[in-house]
Amino acid sequence: MKILKNNRIRIHEIIFEADTKMGKLFDIILLIAILLSILVVMLESVPSLGLKYGIYFFTVEWILTILFTIEYLLRLYVVERPVRYAKSFFGIVDLMSILPSYLSLILPGSQYFLAIRAFRLLRVFRIFRLVNYLSGSRTILTAIKQSRHKIQVFLLTIFIVVIVMGTLMYVIEGQHNSGFDNIPRSIYWAIITLTTVGYGDITPITALGQMLASVIMIMGYAIIAVPTGIVTGELIKQENYKKLSLRSCPHCMTEGHVEESVYCFACGEKLNG
Amino acid sequence: MKILKNNRIRIHEIIFEADTKMGKLFDIILLIAILLSILVVMLESVPSLGLKYGIYFFTVEWILTILFTIEYLLRLYVVERPVRYAKSFFGIVDLMSILPSYLSLILPGSQYFLAIRAFRLLRVFRIFRLVNYLSGSRTILTAIKQSRHKIQVFLLTIFIVVIVMGTLMYVIEGQHNSGFDNIPRSIYWAIITLTTVGYGDITPITALGQMLASVIMIMGYAIIAVPTGIVTGELIKQENYKKLSLRSCPHCMTEGHVEESVYCFACGEKLNG
Amino acid sequence: MKILKNNRIRIHEIIFEADTKMGKLFDIILLIAILLSILVVMLESVPSLGLKYGIYFFTVEWILTILFTIEYLLRLYVVERPVRYAKSFFGIVDLMSILPSYLSLILPGSQYFLAIRAFRLLRVFRIFRLVNYLSGSRTILTAIKQSRHKIQVFLLTIFIVVIVMGTLMYVIEGQHNSGFDNIPRSIYWAIITLTTVGYGDITPITALGQMLASVIMIMGYAIIAVPTGIVTGELIKQENYKKLSLRSCPHCMTEGHVEESVYCFACGEKLNG
Amino acid sequence: MKILKNNRIRIHEIIFEADTKMGKLFDIILLIAILLSILVVMLESVPSLGLKYGIYFFTVEWILTILFTIEYLLRLYVVERPVRYAKSFFGIVDLMSILPSYLSLILPGSQYFLAIRAFRLLRVFRIFRLVNYLSGSRTILTAIKQSRHKIQVFLLTIFIVVIVMGTLMYVIEGQHNSGFDNIPRSIYWAIITLTTVGYGDITPITALGQMLASVIMIMGYAIIAVPTGIVTGELIKQENYKKLSLRSCPHCMTEGHVEESVYCFACGEKLNG
Repeated sequence: MKILKNNRIRIHEIIFEADTKMGKLFDIILLIAILLSILVVMLESVPSLGLKYGIYFFTVEWILTILFTIEYLLRLYVVERPVRYAKSFFGIVDLMSILPSYLSLILPGSQYFLAIRAFRLLRVFRIFRLVNYLSGSRTILTAIKQSRHKIQVFLLTIFIVVIVMGTLMYVIEGQHNSGFDNIPRSIYWAIITLTTVGYGDITPITALGQMLASVIMIMGYAIIAVPTGIVTGELIKQENYKKLSLRSCPHCMTEGHVEESVYCFACGEKLNG
Repeated sequence: MKILKNNRIRIHEIIFEADTKMGKLFDIILLIAILLSILVVMLESVPSLGLKYGIYFFTVEWILTILFTIEYLLRLYVVERPVRYAKSFFGIVDLMSILPSYLSLILPGSQYFLAIRAFRLLRVFRIFRLVNYLSGSRTILTAIKQSRHKIQVFLLTIFIVVIVMGTLMYVIEGQHNSGFDNIPRSIYWAIITLTTVGYGDITPITALGQMLASVIMIMGYAIIAVPTGIVTGELIKQENYKKLSLRSCPHCMTEGHVEESVYCFACGEKLNG
Repeated sequence: MKILKNNRIRIHEIIFEADTKMGKLFDIILLIAILLSILVVMLESVPSLGLKYGIYFFTVEWILTILFTIEYLLRLYVVERPVRYAKSFFGIVDLMSILPSYLSLILPGSQYFLAIRAFRLLRVFRIFRLVNYLSGSRTILTAIKQSRHKIQVFLLTIFIVVIVMGTLMYVIEGQHNSGFDNIPRSIYWAIITLTTVGYGDITPITALGQMLASVIMIMGYAIIAVPTGIVTGELIKQENYKKLSLRSCPHCMTEGHVEESVYCFACGEKLNG
Repeated sequence: MKILKNNRIRIHEIIFEADTKMGKLFDIILLIAILLSILVVMLESVPSLGLKYGIYFFTVEWILTILFTIEYLLRLYVVERPVRYAKSFFGIVDLMSILPSYLSLILPGSQYFLAIRAFRLLRVFRIFRLVNYLSGSRTILTAIKQSRHKIQVFLLTIFIVVIVMGTLMYVIEGQHNSGFDNIPRSIYWAIITLTTVGYGDITPITALGQMLASVIMIMGYAIIAVPTGIVTGELIKQENYKKLSLRSCPHCMTEGHVEESVYCFACGEKLNG
């Protein structure tokens, strides 16, 4: 019983942690397996390759599916609360990585259905979360989280602008057979234009329509400044906060020392830490 | 008489404020009604859906129109100065939300005309203004307001660049049947290009035209830095100001001291903390 | 003789300055005349309007041309050094505003040739330079001037990337009839792609070409951060400099006072200014 | 022997350094030769010009090739370690500048093959590296280097988003003949859309596909804020650091003091100024 438990702890260490040698090795193998399986899914979808090398793709796919299945079962076995893991984001992603392959045996699954195996790629995040190489991303994530409210306001504004402008364009262009057939399509066009993507599959042909389109374009061109300003401001704040205000002088309580300070710049006394 | 007046005050509270329980409930119901009616307007414009579910859309539309009418009349009833409200931005938006439906009974209004009901969406801003959830937007709005002058200069520059470049392209490409048929169209193209939207419905075909187009593209690619810089700078300033204004002078209550201040910059008295 | 000289000074005041009532009136009339003439040039280029209202456009155009001619001659008359003015940027723009109309009488000038009258619009800058309303633009211009060197490096990099990538695409796609017919055209495509304009008039069709195109797109998407960062950084520096470091305490020499400071935050003494 | 060695040193000075008059002259001639040869490669690729002026292009090309060959041999001769130079980045670029021309004599090389001569342009960097005119670029490069990790995280995120979204679009649009024929092509589309390039060669036609496309567009429009924020933040930090590092401690020579410092943070001694 104790051996079994120790075993569980050891497997847990290998699968879930990246501190040990075995853990790192496991992560690297898993990363390669994921990328290989994504490559197979992608190449399989190209008809010319699918016909030619179909049998190889099939073999690699099943070997990887079986490995992923073993891994999934091991994860279920070693975690404290299997149900909670199974319901977690990564638990669902892990299940979705293997389920389509098995379902394709039962159901005559089309190739489109099988493509959702590509969601395996999301598992890459699991590995990277463990490795603390991604420390650089923490600042970005914090900055985005901090400016969440402002970004919501920005998205809401975009949302309303796009609906109002799309409807207006439908009123103006709707009768001229230029692709603005209905309001949802006009809104789709407004999004294409405001975000400066500009496919050109729908374009206004009336003078008034082109004038309104010009307004939306310049608007889109200018308001991109807003999310940029928000994230930049937040990132700079993060950076300043990290750099300066953490320590204060034990003697005169002055704050704002640069990171490598040994002595207080205001009174010359020694700093802590 | 007094009861009536009290009634008016109570209705005013419910409709115009969001502090009370009833006020919040009213806002939520209004929000759902607006979004539902927008959805109906949008789906109605899709011919295939319009034919199939037209009768349901019609019913929902009229129920909501009647509700919005009652709401509009109540608003007129409870405000201090009804005329002023009716002439205000939101007064006009509120009226425009219900008028098209009634007009469609008298006039044989086409579906294009009815689409302006989508302007109802603007009423969403009314609700959000009341809820102080949008406190995050205040910084953005202040930043944009503060940089108003600079943004005007930027827009004026865009305006002139686009007219001059559009005319030049008309001179260069006008004779080559590549879509630069007249100056307004060439200016429209210049806007499409400068804002990096790039529909591709009009594109230069002469070598000289393509060279000038390249110049406009790189210009558009580079000068987007200007509005971004303006808004970012303003946002950071806002943020700094906020950081500054946490302490206030115990003597004259002035705010906005820099972090290391010992004395108040306004009255010379010693600051706390 | 003295009266004539006084006259010259008075006209100079009206035409070149905006402080007096007459000077302001002159500027406003000139602005309207310029915008009106631009409008005529634009509308004239639209064939349907040109045929219908051609005679009105012609009349307005000639009235404005004669007015601009009188103005040009007056300017030559009142300035100290007429030759220097005639050779200056605005002198040339002023001449170009009237010359095409006169030349069209002698030469059978096509409509394309006449379009350069649109350069009159550049005269708008003259008016705005005089009015000090544009004080907001000074910060932007200084920021751009300060970051001139960095922007040059950025443009040089864009230039080299675009030539190298365009050539590579020509090597890859040249034989596949997908529009990459020669290197200049491929470079034109690279500019369209890097600046994220994306007309779609030329697009790669080979797998390798699409991969390289993806690299250029992501590059273009990411390096837009560079000019933005440069201008933003410069604008913030400008702003900080303006706000803080101009005054220093006469008593303890501390700098970095906020604009509205009366007393030094470090020693509590009164500040100058 | 000594004369030979002195000769080597003198040639080294001329070719590799830009301090002497001869060195500067050499750099300018080399720059002109490179740009001229690039121009020839570009114009040669235009069929109409290639046929007409082919013989002139051929002559100029061979004169420049021989000059570049002499230069390459001289470089090999004067450097301390010829093998190391030949294997270095610029050594390979230098060789690639001349090799295609010679190979075209042996092999019946197509014009596509010859185009790689355009890589000569990369040699321009060599010249600019020597000239310290590019001091402005140092800040940019340092900023990019410092934010390397964050940019890697950003690119990794783009990479995963694009694969997941591309696959999803393949599942949705694959059966509708709208260009999403296989997963790699769908990923190519996702890159075009996320980077807001928007060629329009592939566009979704189903309602669900257009909705997902809208999500990707708004995403691409918003997350451009991230690299911009990173680079801007880094540039401002660089700038601040520069502002910090003007004073150095008279005792221990440490730099990087904040503006209001009285004592050195490293050794506690009093600072000047």
